Amino acid sequence: MSMTPAEVREYARQHDMITTAGHAPGFMQANLLAVPQEYAFDFLLFAQRNPKPCPIVGVLEAGQYSSELLPGGDIRTDIPGYRVFENGELVAEPADAREYYNDDIVSFLIGCSFTFETALQDAGIKLPHIEQGKNVAMYKTNRACKPAGVFSGPMVVSMRPIPEDRVVDAVRIASRYPSVHGAPVHIGDPASLGIADLSMPDFGEAVDIPDNHVPVFWACGVTPQAAVMDSKPGLAITHAPGKMLVTDIKDSEYLIP
Amino acid sequence: MSMTPAEVREYARQHDMITTAGHAPGFMQANLLAVPQEYAFDFLLFAQRNPKPCPIVGVLEAGQYSSELLPGGDIRTDIPGYRVFENGELVAEPADAREYYNDDIVSFLIGCSFTFETALQDAGIKLPHIEQGKNVAMYKTNRACKPAGVFSGPMVVSMRPIPEDRVVDAVRIASRYPSVHGAPVHIGDPASLGIADLSMPDFGEAVDIPDNHVPVFWACGVTPQAAVMDSKPGLAITHAPGKMLVTDIKDSEYLIP
Repeated sequence: MSMTPAEVREYARQHDMITTAGHAPGFMQANLLAVPQEYAFDFLLFAQRNPKPCPIVGVLEAGQYSSELLPGGDIRTDIPGYRVFENGELVAEPADAREYYNDDIVSFLIGCSFTFETALQDAGIKLPHIEQGKNVAMYKTNRACKPAGVFSGPMVVSMRPIPEDRVVDAVRIASRYPSVHGAPVHIGDPASLGIADLSMPDFGEAVDIPDNHVPVFWACGVTPQAAVMDSKPGLAITHAPGKMLVTDIKDSEYLIP
Repeated sequence: MSMTPAEVREYARQHDMITTAGHAPGFMQANLLAVPQEYAFDFLLFAQRNPKPCPIVGVLEAGQYSSELLPGGDIRTDIPGYRVFENGELVAEPADAREYYNDDIVSFLIGCSFTFETALQDAGIKLPHIEQGKNVAMYKTNRACKPAGVFSGPMVVSMRPIPEDRVVDAVRIASRYPSVHGAPVHIGDPASLGIADLSMPDFGEAVDIPDNHVPVFWACGVTPQAAVMDSKPGLAITHAPGKMLVTDIKDSEYLIP
Protein backbone atom coordinates (compact mmCIF):
# COMPACT_ATOMS: atom_id res chain seq x y z
CA MET A 1 0.00 0.00 0.00
CA SER A 2 1.67 3.19 -1.07
CA MET A 3 1.71 6.52 0.76
CA THR A 4 0.53 9.82 -0.69
CA PRO A 5 3.21 12.44 -1.39
CA ALA A 6 2.14 14.36 1.75
CA GLU A 7 2.44 11.16 3.79
CA VAL A 8 5.94 10.49 2.44
CA ARG A 9 6.94 14.07 3.33
CA GLU A 10 5.47 13.65 6.81
CA TYR A 11 7.30 10.33 7.20
CA ALA A 12 10.54 11.93 5.95
CA ARG A 13 10.22 14.65 8.60
CA GLN A 14 10.47 11.95 11.26
CA HIS A 15 12.59 9.23 9.68
CA ASP A 16 15.57 8.59 7.51
CA MET A 17 15.01 6.55 4.36
CA ILE A 18 17.67 4.85 2.20
CA THR A 19 15.97 6.35 -0.82
CA THR A 20 12.63 7.78 -1.79
CA ALA A 21 12.72 5.79 -5.07
CA GLY A 22 9.57 3.72 -5.40
CA HIS A 23 7.61 5.77 -2.84
CA ALA A 24 4.40 7.53 -3.88
CA PRO A 25 4.70 6.10 -7.38
CA GLY A 26 3.33 8.35 -10.11
CA PHE A 27 4.33 11.56 -8.31
CA MET A 28 7.31 13.62 -9.30
CA GLN A 29 10.35 13.62 -7.06
CA ALA A 30 12.75 16.55 -7.04
CA ASN A 31 16.37 17.32 -6.25
CA LEU A 32 17.17 20.31 -4.06
CA LEU A 33 19.86 22.93 -4.41
CA ALA A 34 19.56 25.95 -2.13
CA VAL A 35 21.99 28.87 -2.13
CA PRO A 36 22.14 32.44 -0.79
CA GLN A 37 20.64 35.09 -3.10
CA GLU A 38 24.06 36.27 -4.24
CA TYR A 39 24.49 32.94 -6.10
CA ALA A 40 20.87 32.55 -7.22
CA PHE A 41 21.17 34.16 -10.65
CA ASP A 42 24.33 32.27 -11.51
CA PHE A 43 22.74 28.98 -10.53
CA LEU A 44 19.48 29.58 -12.38
CA LEU A 45 21.53 30.49 -15.45
CA PHE A 46 23.63 27.32 -14.99
CA ALA A 47 20.40 25.31 -14.97
CA GLN A 48 19.03 27.18 -17.98
CA ARG A 49 22.20 26.40 -19.92
CA ASN A 50 22.24 22.74 -18.83
CA PRO A 51 18.59 21.75 -18.98
CA LYS A 52 19.21 18.05 -19.42
CA PRO A 53 20.95 17.48 -16.05
CA CYS A 54 19.31 20.50 -14.33
CA PRO A 55 15.64 20.77 -15.35
CA ILE A 56 14.11 23.34 -13.00
CA VAL A 57 10.66 22.25 -11.85
CA GLY A 58 10.17 24.92 -9.19
CA VAL A 59 11.89 27.75 -7.35
CA LEU A 60 11.15 28.89 -3.80
CA GLU A 61 12.18 32.51 -3.47
CA ALA A 62 14.17 33.75 -0.49
CA GLY A 63 12.12 33.23 2.67
CA GLN A 64 9.64 30.92 0.92
CA TYR A 65 9.51 27.33 2.24
CA SER A 66 6.40 25.88 0.66
CA SER A 67 4.71 25.95 -2.74
CA GLU A 68 2.23 24.05 -4.87
CA LEU A 69 4.86 21.33 -5.18
CA LEU A 70 4.68 20.63 -1.44
CA PRO A 71 1.38 22.04 -0.15
CA GLY A 72 1.49 22.46 3.61
CA GLY A 73 5.08 21.27 3.59
CA ASP A 74 8.43 22.80 4.46
CA ILE A 75 11.43 22.40 2.19
CA ARG A 76 13.72 22.58 5.24
CA THR A 77 12.32 19.41 6.84
CA ASP A 78 10.43 17.34 4.25
CA ILE A 79 13.39 15.62 2.61
CA PRO A 80 14.73 12.53 4.43
CA GLY A 81 18.30 13.81 4.42
CA TYR A 82 20.24 16.95 3.52
CA ARG A 83 23.80 17.84 2.74
CA VAL A 84 25.35 21.16 3.71
CA PHE A 85 28.38 22.48 1.81
CA GLU A 86 30.55 25.41 2.88
CA ASN A 87 32.99 26.61 0.22
CA GLY A 88 32.45 23.35 -1.64
CA GLU A 89 33.21 21.14 1.37
CA LEU A 90 30.60 18.82 2.81
CA VAL A 91 30.28 19.98 6.44
CA ALA A 92 27.06 18.31 7.63
CA GLU A 93 24.44 15.75 6.69
CA PRO A 94 21.47 16.74 8.84
CA ALA A 95 18.01 15.18 8.79
CA ASP A 96 16.54 18.66 9.31
CA ALA A 97 18.00 21.69 7.51
CA ARG A 98 16.33 24.46 9.52
CA GLU A 99 19.43 25.50 11.40
CA TYR A 100 21.27 26.08 8.10
CA TYR A 101 18.51 27.98 6.34
CA ASN A 102 17.84 31.67 6.66
CA ASP A 103 15.57 34.11 4.83
CA ASP A 104 18.29 34.96 2.31
CA ILE A 105 18.29 31.46 0.79
CA VAL A 106 16.69 30.54 -2.54
CA SER A 107 15.67 26.88 -3.07
CA PHE A 108 15.80 25.33 -6.53
CA LEU A 109 13.87 22.13 -7.20
CA ILE A 110 15.22 20.08 -10.06
CA GLY A 111 13.52 17.23 -11.89
CA CYS A 112 14.59 13.70 -11.07
CA SER A 113 14.90 10.59 -13.17
CA PHE A 114 12.78 8.75 -10.62
CA THR A 115 9.94 10.45 -12.52
CA PHE A 116 10.18 8.10 -15.47
CA GLU A 117 11.00 5.03 -13.38
CA THR A 118 7.31 4.47 -12.79
CA ALA A 119 6.70 4.59 -16.53
CA LEU A 120 9.51 2.10 -17.12
CA GLN A 121 8.13 -0.24 -14.47
CA ASP A 122 4.61 0.11 -15.86
CA ALA A 123 6.03 -1.14 -19.15
CA GLY A 124 7.36 -4.22 -17.38
CA ILE A 125 10.99 -3.07 -17.22
CA LYS A 126 12.31 -4.13 -13.82
CA LEU A 127 14.81 -1.75 -12.22
CA PRO A 128 17.60 -3.65 -10.44
CA HIS A 129 18.33 -0.92 -7.86
CA ILE A 130 14.73 -1.04 -6.69
CA GLU A 131 14.71 -4.86 -6.78
CA GLN A 132 17.96 -4.85 -4.76
CA GLY A 133 16.63 -2.28 -2.27
CA LYS A 134 19.45 0.12 -3.11
CA ASN A 135 19.90 3.75 -3.98
CA VAL A 136 20.57 4.35 -7.67
CA ALA A 137 24.25 4.49 -8.69
CA MET A 138 25.49 7.92 -9.81
CA TYR A 139 28.78 8.90 -11.44
CA LYS A 140 30.67 12.05 -12.38
CA THR A 141 31.47 12.00 -16.12
CA ASN A 142 34.08 13.53 -18.39
CA ARG A 143 31.44 15.76 -19.96
CA ALA A 144 31.62 19.36 -18.73
CA CYS A 145 28.47 21.38 -18.15
CA LYS A 146 28.26 24.81 -19.76
CA PRO A 147 29.51 27.23 -17.10
CA ALA A 148 27.46 30.18 -15.81
CA GLY A 149 28.83 32.84 -13.48
CA VAL A 150 30.62 31.06 -10.64
CA PHE A 151 29.19 27.63 -11.46
CA SER A 152 30.90 24.96 -13.52
CA GLY A 153 31.45 21.24 -13.19
CA PRO A 154 30.98 17.82 -14.76
CA MET A 155 27.68 16.29 -15.75
CA VAL A 156 26.62 13.59 -13.28
CA VAL A 157 24.69 10.59 -14.56
CA SER A 158 22.54 7.93 -12.96
CA MET A 159 22.92 4.36 -14.23
CA ARG A 160 20.21 1.75 -14.56
CA PRO A 161 20.90 -1.76 -15.85
CA ILE A 162 18.26 -2.49 -18.49
CA PRO A 163 17.60 -5.90 -20.07
CA GLU A 164 19.16 -5.99 -23.53
CA ASP A 165 15.85 -6.62 -25.21
CA ARG A 166 14.19 -3.64 -23.48
CA VAL A 167 16.80 -0.94 -24.09
CA VAL A 168 14.92 0.46 -27.07
CA ASP A 169 11.72 0.60 -25.02
CA ALA A 170 13.53 2.35 -22.16
CA VAL A 171 14.83 5.03 -24.54
CA ARG A 172 11.44 5.47 -26.12
CA ILE A 173 9.61 5.75 -22.80
CA ALA A 174 12.10 8.06 -21.06
CA SER A 175 12.21 10.32 -24.14
CA ARG A 176 8.62 11.23 -23.45
CA TYR A 177 9.74 13.05 -20.28
CA PRO A 178 12.11 15.66 -21.75
CA SER A 179 11.64 18.05 -18.84
CA VAL A 180 12.90 15.51 -16.29
CA HIS A 181 16.13 14.35 -17.98
CA GLY A 182 14.32 12.53 -20.81
CA ALA A 183 16.27 10.28 -23.14
CA PRO A 184 19.45 8.67 -21.80
CA VAL A 185 22.75 10.36 -22.58
CA HIS A 186 24.55 7.09 -23.19
CA ILE A 187 23.98 3.36 -23.60
CA GLY A 188 26.68 0.78 -22.92
CA ASP A 189 30.38 1.34 -22.36
CA PRO A 190 30.96 3.42 -19.21
CA ALA A 191 34.49 4.30 -20.35
CA SER A 192 33.17 6.63 -23.03
CA LEU A 193 31.75 8.80 -20.23
CA GLY A 194 35.05 8.58 -18.38
CA ILE A 195 33.65 6.16 -15.77
CA ALA A 196 36.45 3.75 -14.87
CA ASP A 197 34.60 1.35 -12.59
CA LEU A 198 30.84 0.92 -12.26
CA SER A 199 31.33 -0.65 -8.83
CA MET A 200 32.67 2.67 -7.49
CA PRO A 201 29.87 5.23 -7.89
CA ASP A 202 30.53 8.82 -6.84
CA PHE A 203 27.06 9.08 -5.29
CA GLY A 204 24.46 6.50 -4.24
CA GLU A 205 25.22 2.79 -4.15
CA ALA A 206 26.79 0.29 -6.52
CA VAL A 207 24.10 -1.79 -8.15
CA ASP A 208 24.70 -5.33 -9.38
CA ILE A 209 24.28 -5.68 -13.12
CA PRO A 210 22.31 -8.86 -13.83
CA ASP A 211 23.15 -11.07 -16.81
CA ASN A 212 21.95 -9.86 -20.19
CA HIS A 213 21.56 -6.29 -18.87
CA VAL A 214 23.17 -3.20 -20.37
CA PRO A 215 24.14 -0.13 -18.32
CA VAL A 216 22.08 2.86 -19.44
CA PHE A 217 23.05 6.36 -18.29
CA TRP A 218 20.80 9.36 -17.73
CA ALA A 219 21.69 12.98 -16.93
CA CYS A 220 21.21 13.34 -13.18
CA GLY A 221 19.93 16.07 -10.89
CA VAL A 222 22.92 15.51 -8.60
CA THR A 223 24.90 17.49 -11.21
CA PRO A 224 24.38 20.71 -9.19
CA GLN A 225 26.07 19.06 -6.19
CA ALA A 226 29.11 18.33 -8.34
CA ALA A 227 29.03 21.96 -9.49
CA VAL A 228 28.91 23.08 -5.85
CA MET A 229 31.91 20.92 -5.05
CA ASP A 230 33.83 22.43 -7.99
CA SER A 231 32.61 26.02 -7.72
CA LYS A 232 32.69 26.44 -3.93
CA PRO A 233 29.91 28.92 -3.16
CA GLY A 234 30.01 30.07 0.47
CA LEU A 235 26.97 27.97 1.37
CA ALA A 236 24.82 25.40 -0.40
CA ILE A 237 22.18 23.04 0.94
CA THR A 238 21.17 20.01 -1.11
CA HIS A 239 19.18 16.82 -0.66
CA ALA A 240 21.24 13.72 0.11
CA PRO A 241 21.59 11.76 -3.16
CA GLY A 242 18.65 9.38 -3.63
CA LYS A 243 16.69 11.10 -0.85
CA MET A 244 14.39 13.39 -2.75
CA LEU A 245 11.54 15.76 -2.20
CA VAL A 246 8.35 13.88 -3.08
CA THR A 247 6.03 16.44 -4.68
CA ASP A 248 2.29 16.62 -5.25
CA ILE A 249 2.84 16.98 -9.01
CA LYS A 250 1.93 13.96 -11.07
CA ASP A 251 4.63 12.48 -13.31
CA SER A 252 2.10 12.59 -16.13
CA GLU A 253 2.21 16.40 -16.11
CA TYR A 254 5.74 16.12 -17.45
CA LEU A 255 4.76 13.68 -20.18
CA ILE A 256 4.66 14.87 -23.76
CA PRO A 257 2.02 13.19 -25.89
CA MET B 1 17.85 38.10 -52.57
CA SER B 2 18.04 37.79 -48.83
CA MET B 3 20.81 38.90 -46.48
CA THR B 4 22.65 36.62 -44.07
CA PRO B 5 22.04 37.18 -40.34
CA ALA B 6 25.42 38.94 -40.05
CA GLU B 7 24.50 41.20 -42.95
CA VAL B 8 21.17 42.10 -41.35
CA ARG B 9 22.97 42.93 -38.11
CA GLU B 10 25.50 45.04 -40.02
CA TYR B 11 22.67 46.79 -41.85
CA ALA B 12 20.81 47.35 -38.57
CA ARG B 13 23.92 48.99 -37.09
CA GLN B 14 23.64 51.68 -39.76
CA HIS B 15 19.92 51.89 -40.54
CA ASP B 16 16.50 51.85 -38.99
CA MET B 17 14.09 49.19 -40.24
CA ILE B 18 10.31 49.08 -39.74
CA THR B 19 10.68 45.50 -38.73
CA THR B 20 13.13 42.64 -39.11
CA ALA B 21 10.27 40.26 -39.95
CA GLY B 22 10.96 38.52 -43.23
CA HIS B 23 14.70 39.29 -43.17
CA ALA B 24 17.23 36.43 -43.17
CA PRO B 25 14.41 33.89 -43.39
CA GLY B 26 15.15 30.61 -41.67
CA PHE B 27 17.21 32.21 -38.93
CA MET B 28 15.93 32.78 -35.42
CA GLN B 29 15.13 36.30 -34.34
CA ALA B 30 15.23 37.26 -30.67
CA ASN B 31 13.72 39.80 -28.31
CA LEU B 32 16.02 41.67 -25.93
CA LEU B 33 15.55 42.53 -22.29
CA ALA B 34 18.62 43.86 -20.49
CA VAL B 35 18.68 44.82 -16.81
CA PRO B 36 21.26 45.54 -14.11
CA GLN B 37 22.50 42.48 -12.20
CA GLU B 38 20.36 43.29 -9.17
CA TYR B 39 17.27 42.42 -11.26
CA ALA B 40 18.79 39.55 -13.22
CA PHE B 41 17.69 36.68 -10.98
CA ASP B 42 14.14 37.99 -10.68
CA PHE B 43 13.86 38.33 -14.43
CA LEU B 44 15.35 34.93 -15.24
CA LEU B 45 12.91 33.42 -12.73
CA PHE B 46 10.03 35.36 -14.34
CA ALA B 47 11.02 33.85 -17.69
CA GLN B 48 11.37 30.37 -16.19
CA ARG B 49 7.86 30.63 -14.73
CA ASN B 50 6.39 32.02 -17.96
CA PRO B 51 8.11 29.98 -20.66
CA LYS B 52 5.43 30.46 -23.27
CA PRO B 53 5.76 34.26 -23.59
CA CYS B 54 9.37 34.38 -22.35
CA PRO B 55 11.37 31.48 -23.83
CA ILE B 56 15.02 32.24 -23.05
CA VAL B 57 17.25 31.41 -26.01
CA GLY B 58 20.43 33.00 -24.67
CA VAL B 59 21.87 35.08 -21.85
CA LEU B 60 24.82 37.45 -22.11
CA GLU B 61 26.34 37.82 -18.67
CA ALA B 62 27.30 41.23 -17.28
CA GLY B 63 29.98 42.77 -19.49
CA GLN B 64 29.39 40.25 -22.31
CA TYR B 65 28.16 41.74 -25.61
CA SER B 66 28.54 38.89 -28.10
CA SER B 67 27.91 35.14 -28.16
CA GLU B 68 27.34 32.26 -30.55
CA LEU B 69 23.95 33.82 -31.33
CA LEU B 70 25.63 36.88 -32.84
CA PRO B 71 29.23 35.95 -33.72
CA GLY B 72 31.32 39.05 -34.15
CA GLY B 73 28.33 41.18 -33.24
CA ASP B 74 27.48 43.55 -30.41
CA ILE B 75 24.14 43.36 -28.64
CA ARG B 76 24.33 47.13 -27.98
CA THR B 77 24.32 48.08 -31.67
CA ASP B 78 23.04 45.17 -33.78
CA ILE B 79 19.31 45.68 -33.26
CA PRO B 80 17.67 48.32 -35.51
CA GLY B 81 16.06 50.12 -32.57
CA TYR B 82 16.10 50.03 -28.78
CA ARG B 83 13.89 51.25 -25.98
CA VAL B 84 15.23 52.47 -22.67
CA PHE B 85 13.03 52.42 -19.57
CA GLU B 86 13.81 54.11 -16.26
CA ASN B 87 11.53 53.14 -13.40
CA GLY B 88 9.08 51.72 -15.94
CA GLU B 89 8.92 54.89 -18.04
CA LEU B 90 10.08 54.94 -21.64
CA VAL B 91 12.80 57.60 -21.67
CA ALA B 92 14.58 57.03 -24.99
CA GLU B 93 14.37 55.13 -28.26
CA PRO B 94 17.96 55.13 -29.49
CA ALA B 95 19.29 53.37 -32.59
CA ASP B 96 22.45 52.55 -30.64
CA ALA B 97 22.26 51.49 -26.96
CA ARG B 98 25.94 51.85 -26.04
CA GLU B 99 25.49 54.98 -23.97
CA TYR B 100 22.90 53.21 -21.78
CA TYR B 101 24.83 49.97 -21.28
CA ASN B 102 27.49 49.41 -18.67
CA ASP B 103 29.37 46.34 -17.45
CA ASP B 104 26.76 45.64 -14.76
CA ILE B 105 24.03 44.86 -17.28
CA VAL B 106 22.82 41.33 -18.14
CA SER B 107 21.16 40.80 -21.55
CA PHE B 108 18.41 38.24 -21.98
CA LEU B 109 17.53 37.03 -25.47
CA ILE B 110 14.02 35.70 -25.80
CA GLY B 111 12.55 33.61 -28.62
CA CYS B 112 10.34 35.34 -31.14
CA SER B 113 7.30 34.19 -33.05
CA PHE B 114 8.98 35.34 -36.25
CA THR B 115 10.77 31.99 -35.92
CA PHE B 116 7.76 30.00 -37.06
CA GLU B 117 6.61 32.57 -39.62
CA THR B 118 8.99 31.09 -42.17
CA ALA B 119 7.51 27.65 -41.55
CA LEU B 120 3.98 29.05 -41.96
CA GLN B 121 4.94 30.76 -45.19
CA ASP B 122 6.70 27.62 -46.46
CA ALA B 123 3.37 25.86 -46.00
CA GLY B 124 1.72 28.47 -48.24
CA ILE B 125 0.10 30.44 -45.40
CA LYS B 126 0.42 34.11 -46.33
CA LEU B 127 0.96 36.49 -43.43
CA PRO B 128 -0.98 39.74 -43.92
CA HIS B 129 1.41 41.92 -41.88
CA ILE B 130 4.29 40.91 -44.14
CA GLU B 131 2.13 41.30 -47.27
CA GLN B 132 1.08 44.76 -45.99
CA GLY B 133 4.66 45.76 -45.15
CA LYS B 134 3.75 46.31 -41.51
CA ASN B 135 5.05 45.39 -38.10
CA VAL B 136 3.02 42.62 -36.43
CA ALA B 137 0.18 43.81 -34.13
CA MET B 138 0.71 43.14 -30.42
CA TYR B 139 -1.73 43.49 -27.52
CA LYS B 140 -1.67 43.36 -23.74
CA THR B 141 -4.14 40.73 -22.52
CA ASN B 142 -6.18 40.10 -19.39
CA ARG B 143 -4.03 37.07 -18.59
CA ALA B 144 -1.52 37.72 -15.83
CA CYS B 145 1.93 36.21 -15.94
CA LYS B 146 3.14 34.32 -12.88
CA PRO B 147 5.08 36.90 -10.85
CA ALA B 148 8.72 36.44 -9.78
CA GLY B 149 10.50 38.77 -7.41
CA VAL B 150 9.86 42.34 -8.56
CA PHE B 151 8.46 41.31 -11.94
CA SER B 152 4.79 40.90 -12.78
CA GLY B 153 2.53 41.96 -15.61
CA PRO B 154 0.11 40.84 -18.30
CA MET B 155 0.88 38.38 -21.08
CA VAL B 156 1.34 40.18 -24.39
CA VAL B 157 0.24 38.44 -27.59
CA SER B 158 1.00 38.92 -31.26
CA MET B 159 -1.89 38.54 -33.72
CA ARG B 160 -1.77 37.10 -37.20
CA PRO B 161 -4.85 36.88 -39.42
CA ILE B 162 -4.94 33.33 -40.81
CA PRO B 163 -7.23 32.10 -43.61
CA GLU B 164 -10.11 30.13 -42.09
CA ASP B 165 -9.17 27.01 -43.97
CA ARG B 166 -5.53 27.13 -42.79
CA VAL B 167 -6.04 27.71 -39.06
CA VAL B 168 -5.61 24.05 -38.23
CA ASP B 169 -2.39 23.95 -40.26
CA ALA B 170 -1.11 27.07 -38.52
CA VAL B 171 -1.68 25.49 -35.10
CA ARG B 172 -0.07 22.25 -36.17
CA ILE B 173 3.00 23.94 -37.65
CA ALA B 174 3.59 26.45 -34.84
CA SER B 175 3.17 23.70 -32.23
CA ARG B 176 6.35 22.15 -33.55
CA TYR B 177 8.30 25.15 -32.16
CA PRO B 178 7.47 24.90 -28.44
CA SER B 179 10.61 26.73 -27.37
CA VAL B 180 9.70 29.87 -29.36
CA HIS B 181 6.09 30.42 -28.24
CA GLY B 182 4.77 27.32 -30.05
CA ALA B 183 1.04 26.77 -30.34
CA PRO B 184 -1.20 29.83 -30.29
CA VAL B 185 -2.79 30.79 -26.99
CA HIS B 186 -6.11 31.71 -28.59
CA ILE B 187 -8.03 31.53 -31.86
CA GLY B 188 -10.84 33.91 -32.70
CA ASP B 189 -12.65 36.34 -30.41
CA PRO B 190 -10.19 38.97 -29.10
CA ALA B 191 -12.60 39.89 -26.29
CA SER B 192 -11.85 36.64 -24.47
CA LEU B 193 -8.27 37.89 -24.05
CA GLY B 194 -9.56 41.29 -22.93
CA ILE B 195 -8.65 42.96 -26.22
CA ALA B 196 -11.34 45.55 -26.96
CA ASP B 197 -10.28 46.72 -30.39
CA LEU B 198 -7.93 44.97 -32.80
CA SER B 199 -7.33 48.27 -34.60
CA MET B 200 -5.65 49.68 -31.48
CA PRO B 201 -2.62 47.47 -30.74
CA ASP B 202 -0.50 48.24 -27.69
CA PHE B 203 2.69 47.57 -29.66
CA GLY B 204 3.49 47.34 -33.38
CA GLU B 205 0.97 48.30 -36.03
CA ALA B 206 -2.68 47.54 -36.74
CA VAL B 207 -2.94 44.95 -39.48
CA ASP B 208 -5.96 44.75 -41.80
CA ILE B 209 -7.81 41.48 -41.46
CA PRO B 210 -8.68 40.19 -44.94
CA ASP B 211 -12.02 38.49 -45.65
CA ASN B 212 -12.31 34.90 -44.52
CA HIS B 213 -9.39 35.34 -42.10
CA VAL B 214 -9.49 34.59 -38.38
CA PRO B 215 -7.33 36.42 -35.83
CA VAL B 216 -4.92 33.97 -34.19
CA PHE B 217 -2.99 35.01 -31.08
CA TRP B 218 0.44 33.83 -29.94
CA ALA B 219 2.28 34.53 -26.67
CA CYS B 220 4.76 37.30 -27.47
CA GLY B 221 8.29 38.13 -26.42
CA VAL B 222 7.24 41.74 -25.82
CA THR B 223 5.71 40.43 -22.56
CA PRO B 224 8.90 41.39 -20.66
CA GLN B 225 8.44 45.02 -21.79
CA ALA B 226 4.96 45.02 -20.31
CA ALA B 227 6.43 43.56 -17.11
CA VAL B 228 9.02 46.34 -17.07
CA MET B 229 6.29 48.95 -17.44
CA ASP B 230 4.37 47.39 -14.54
CA SER B 231 7.31 46.46 -12.32
CA LYS B 232 9.45 49.56 -12.76
CA PRO B 233 13.04 48.36 -12.38
CA GLY B 234 15.49 51.25 -12.20
CA LEU B 235 16.78 50.60 -15.72
CA ALA B 236 15.80 48.27 -18.56
CA ILE B 237 16.91 48.20 -22.18
CA THR B 238 14.80 46.36 -24.75
CA HIS B 239 14.54 46.02 -28.51
CA ALA B 240 11.87 48.20 -30.11
CA PRO B 241 8.86 45.97 -30.82
CA GLY B 242 9.17 44.27 -34.20
CA LYS B 243 12.86 45.24 -34.46
CA MET B 244 14.62 42.12 -33.36
CA LEU B 245 18.08 40.69 -33.04
CA VAL B 246 18.63 38.44 -36.07
CA THR B 247 20.73 35.51 -34.84
CA ASP B 248 22.95 32.95 -36.53
CA ILE B 249 20.83 30.12 -35.10
CA LYS B 250 18.65 28.30 -37.60
CA ASP B 251 14.94 28.15 -36.89
CA SER B 252 15.15 24.42 -37.51
CA GLU B 253 17.22 24.00 -34.33
CA TYR B 254 14.08 24.89 -32.40
CA LEU B 255 11.93 22.41 -34.29
CA ILE B 256 10.78 19.24 -32.57
CA PRO B 257 10.46 16.26 -34.89
